[in-house]
Amino acid sequence: MINIAILGFGVVGGGITEVIEQNKKALKAYVGDDIYVKKILDLREFPDSPYGDRVVHDVNEIVGDPDIALVCETMGGVNPAFDFSCAMLKAGKHMVTANKELVAKKGLELTSLAKENGVHYFFEPSVGGGIPEIRSMRTSLAGDTITAIDGILNGTTNYILTRMKREGVDFTSTLKDAQRLGYAEANPSADVDGLDAQRKIMILTAVATGYLVKEEDVYCETMTKLTPADIDAAKRWGGAVKLLGSSRIDEDEASLYVAPFFVPESSPLAFVEDVYNAIHVTSPVTGDVMYYGRGAGRMPTAGAVVEDVASILSGLAAKEKKCEWQAAPAGYVKPFSENTFAYYIRTKADSKLEALEAAALSFGGITEIPGTPENVCEYITAEIEEKTAQEIIGSGALGEVESVIRIMK
Amino acid sequence: MINIAILGFGVVGGGITEVIEQNKKALKAYVGDDIYVKKILDLREFPDSPYGDRVVHDVNEIVGDPDIALVCETMGGVNPAFDFSCAMLKAGKHMVTANKELVAKKGLELTSLAKENGVHYFFEPSVGGGIPEIRSMRTSLAGDTITAIDGILNGTTNYILTRMKREGVDFTSTLKDAQRLGYAEANPSADVDGLDAQRKIMILTAVATGYLVKEEDVYCETMTKLTPADIDAAKRWGGAVKLLGSSRIDEDEASLYVAPFFVPESSPLAFVEDVYNAIHVTSPVTGDVMYYGRGAGRMPTAGAVVEDVASILSGLAAKEKKCEWQAAPAGYVKPFSENTFAYYIRTKADSKLEALEAAALSFGGITEIPGTPENVCEYITAEIEEKTAQEIIGSGALGEVESVIRIMK
Repeated sequence: MINIAILGFGVVGGGITEVIEQNKKALKAYVGDDIYVKKILDLREFPDSPYGDRVVHDVNEIVGDPDIALVCETMGGVNPAFDFSCAMLKAGKHMVTANKELVAKKGLELTSLAKENGVHYFFEPSVGGGIPEIRSMRTSLAGDTITAIDGILNGTTNYILTRMKREGVDFTSTLKDAQRLGYAEANPSADVDGLDAQRKIMILTAVATGYLVKEEDVYCETMTKLTPADIDAAKRWGGAVKLLGSSRIDEDEASLYVAPFFVPESSPLAFVEDVYNAIHVTSPVTGDVMYYGRGAGRMPTAGAVVEDVASILSGLAAKEKKCEWQAAPAGYVKPFSENTFAYYIRTKADSKLEALEAAALSFGGITEIPGTPENVCEYITAEIEEKTAQEIIGSGALGEVESVIRIMK
Repeated sequence: MINIAILGFGVVGGGITEVIEQNKKALKAYVGDDIYVKKILDLREFPDSPYGDRVVHDVNEIVGDPDIALVCETMGGVNPAFDFSCAMLKAGKHMVTANKELVAKKGLELTSLAKENGVHYFFEPSVGGGIPEIRSMRTSLAGDTITAIDGILNGTTNYILTRMKREGVDFTSTLKDAQRLGYAEANPSADVDGLDAQRKIMILTAVATGYLVKEEDVYCETMTKLTPADIDAAKRWGGAVKLLGSSRIDEDEASLYVAPFFVPESSPLAFVEDVYNAIHVTSPVTGDVMYYGRGAGRMPTAGAVVEDVASILSGLAAKEKKCEWQAAPAGYVKPFSENTFAYYIRTKADSKLEALEAAALSFGGITEIPGTPENVCEYITAEIEEKTAQEIIGSGALGEVESVIRIMK
């Protein structure tokens, strides 16, 4: 029997006990031994749970228990999860976490502490719920390098965008509906302002490169300003608006960003709808691969935790290289303003012809979008450096600018 | 230095040497040693290749070379690949194969021989080219069971279907075009009659269940009878026609089949276009996951071979359970006629009303498809057992039946 512990008996923590219970036989066959949840850390009491008598309130009861080989952390947040995790790793316990904020903010310390203590720190559940993209990126692509990652990494915002597209409704009322249905938090900022996607693209990029960049080096743009007019323009253009977390990786520099993008129908990402997530990975040998699935939710996330647990306990991970991330060297992250994009731009226009001429002059080439409504001018610019694009947009030369959205490349 | 050999110096075989050469540094870091292609078996001479002096014509030069630890087989076909593979495994050499026909037809013997001799027999490249779905299915989903697999497993037919959909052209002229462009073989039967997809769904199902079923137990329907009218009807219905390789897996029985299906737009499979492949896997805990990418081609397939090679040589695979497949017990494969589907049916009809009434009576419920052309009646039936559906279709009660296509469920 192998004893494990769970930190946090919430939605995912409870799901872990359920998955282990339901798949006892298969797990035993896989791991070679029974997995037993010996202790669960939570401040609350659970008198009605069959696990009620295993709940402890003091983290040291787990840290100091030499019988516990592995700890699952599903508390969320940096404090006190970080301190607790450090204590577990120092005590020689493997860890599996679903806590993307902790991995994104403290991944350097935690992976290095794990390596020092000869244990694993696994975090597949922290990105993409049940989608096994991290294990794939780590164990596959050995003879290949990853040059680009584009992800629909947040289910809440993708649900909102899908509803806006299908029903033509505005952001605010769709958000309210999503909150009513439990798909969005009362304070939705982490989702709609892109912070959640930002953490996830940091983690995925670190898996690909070994460098965990700083949060402030990842450009992050809210999706709260998107309007039905934007969604409709993307349709007429031949695609959809998606909130993407992306990175472009060269040998000695990378660029990471989160923003709403026009995604063309030639990309499978354009068709990822509702609460689904997808991670699209480009590499020169393999070409492009996309992983798709439920990015969150009790059972998919708990299932991903249990798979990491099984992978460690079966010894399958024993030969796997410990991922000790490094801080990115100075100058590794390319400033966002130096990236090149094409842009969707919508301006008010009494005279379309004049507005289009001015835009063509400014950008050195534009393509009009078909079916543009009255008194509005809509076009896609030629590819141009972000810095220059923002200068043009701010200069007043284009007239009154209603919307600017980048085109995925 | 670790020595390996390649059987067959064709498109993929040549790609392997290229991938190893190009990714030398990364592979050394991963495996812990240089990988050296010591011998290549081919009947031809390659005087202009830098590998020309390593080409041998007698398989025994590789079988009897104790320095060769691993052999990649990219010959295709069952003979002589099967005999050669047996000899390699008996000589204690690991194997990686891209040969789906061999794995599907001789997988029982080969996996058991590998286990007996304590070596690995890996076949990730045999399904889905560069898509890492087999490794994912083997190492993930440990705390879960797979209940359904649906794959777009053949790039040639998906390319043909995509062109038919976009351009409204018929099958024969699209096939000719695909042949001219090198996307389809001169003899296209293995692709268009579904045999290629049949082998791949056999392999995927064996990975999920441990049972390799017999070819004759997998229902296989050609896609050569599809017409522009079918493709158009699927669009109006809200989806696309796709050639699927599918399996439905219960605890003690499974059903495997390859056929054209109406795939609804609610499934991400409906949007997989051109030569891309995708494998959609359903399991109760994880929900649904889809893997998407280039299903064939020199570099993606060679890359997948090298990844399996790296996985074995790095020792990462050491703890991985050897997959020794078993023959499915009697009665395990459910006869295709016992499956239940809804059907798209198109009949000639002078009186639509009469035809719809007759159909509704026969199937106990139908839904008409919007926008049906003149003199034709089109509908989707209620779900009904395959056997009964075929009886009704053959009975003459529906009038002159032009087309019958199942709906993916």
